[in-house]
Amino acid sequence: MYQVVLVRHGESEYNRQNLFTGWTDVNLTEKGVHEAREAGKILKSEGYTFDLAFASVLKRSIQTLHYMLDEMDLFWIPEEKSWKLNERHYGALQGLSKIDTAAKYGEQQLHIWRRSLSVRPPMLNEDDPRNPRNDVRYKDIPAENIPLGESLQDTVHRVGQYWHHRLVPLIRRNDRVLISAHGNTLRALIKYMEDINEEELTELNIPTGIPLVYELDEDVNPIRRFYLGDPDHVEAKAREVANQGKMNE
Amino acid sequence: MYQVVLVRHGESEYNRQNLFTGWTDVNLTEKGVHEAREAGKILKSEGYTFDLAFASVLKRSIQTLHYMLDEMDLFWIPEEKSWKLNERHYGALQGLSKIDTAAKYGEQQLHIWRRSLSVRPPMLNEDDPRNPRNDVRYKDIPAENIPLGESLQDTVHRVGQYWHHRLVPLIRRNDRVLISAHGNTLRALIKYMEDINEEELTELNIPTGIPLVYELDEDVNPIRRFYLGDPDHVEAKAREVANQGKMNE
Repeated sequence: MYQVVLVRHGESEYNRQNLFTGWTDVNLTEKGVHEAREAGKILKSEGYTFDLAFASVLKRSIQTLHYMLDEMDLFWIPEEKSWKLNERHYGALQGLSKIDTAAKYGEQQLHIWRRSLSVRPPMLNEDDPRNPRNDVRYKDIPAENIPLGESLQDTVHRVGQYWHHRLVPLIRRNDRVLISAHGNTLRALIKYMEDINEEELTELNIPTGIPLVYELDEDVNPIRRFYLGDPDHVEAKAREVANQGKMNE
Repeated sequence: MYQVVLVRHGESEYNRQNLFTGWTDVNLTEKGVHEAREAGKILKSEGYTFDLAFASVLKRSIQTLHYMLDEMDLFWIPEEKSWKLNERHYGALQGLSKIDTAAKYGEQQLHIWRRSLSVRPPMLNEDDPRNPRNDVRYKDIPAENIPLGESLQDTVHRVGQYWHHRLVPLIRRNDRVLISAHGNTLRALIKYMEDINEEELTELNIPTGIPLVYELDEDVNPIRRFYLGDPDHVEAKAREVANQGKMNE
């Protein structure tokens, strides 16, 4: 039996201000740090351990990983960071609030951007200071592969490359894997494990800071999946995230 | 020109209590955290950046690295942790104070263990709870390669393997390398860059938390080396470490 544990990072500075975050590299808030430490504590108290850890190249996911590793006394395990685990790129919406976006583009359009699988946000212009093609951390990626905005489907596609080519071979060699990432990238990973349909994918709300454990069979299909911790707390966290007024993307 | 920057971790819990640390996996103190953040700040203010970061598998070195990366906004760069960058293994002396050690073995013997190149400390017994052969983090290393105590020469030898086989090839491909490690492992790295003799090696005192910059030519020989920061501060830190009453090993 293989083991994969997913953790969605907790509150960031942009989450608190209810802004579209995407690839904006913001810090965790104090609440977000607390959520990360709590995730590490419950993993430790439930007896989980890991051989390998993964995060995106965004510091809210890396910091979440480090706080968990600290609590589990696992700083020494190898960690790998990949842009393929980055949050969905929200294009020109990054940094806008929900209210700003609704005022500028209308409520209906906002809903489509957030809930559609294939509709892309307005793209960043090439000369936008937010253009990741000018960010040194993406310098080794061919420019045409660096998005200026993504639909959920685009995100799911690039996460799929990482899942199939990088994560599955490691899982199959029996490495116990911990992944600290973002709402939409974790949705994508769940899609590849569960083979869920499009509607289920867009409806899937993952609570922040609650370890989601997958036990997988030899074909990397799920045997069991469950959140760690007090079920009432897990449910309250899931409701918090499902609340449409609270963006965490 | 190639660039390598070495940083010795700051005060740990055992340093503060003046205990032999070696492979004991203790935390940084608040002072140690401050030293690490200061190192990151000066690297950033002096315009340094890095492509790759290294630490041992001991958390005082990993945490030092993470605080520096946080200050430099470089959490996203790849990091690699290796036991070959661990502090010298101090065998059965680990956890003993200088006073305890002098009382048990004599001042003269203590001086030999700390200043000789080739004399090993009393080895750990196989059944000692501190035996790293029972520590999961060393599980992939053949037991016969895991030390139960090391002379400085033993440490220098294993750091040399890592230097020649891992670090030099990366330096030669022009990666700017940041290494967060320990007093004796940094001594060893300096030995390989500088080709210093045995006496110089045992006399070499590296201040904690002060970035030591090496600029290397195409044959990986030093062109220049210098500490970053106010020279008076650097000198005061070096004196602090050279003080024989203060152990940091």
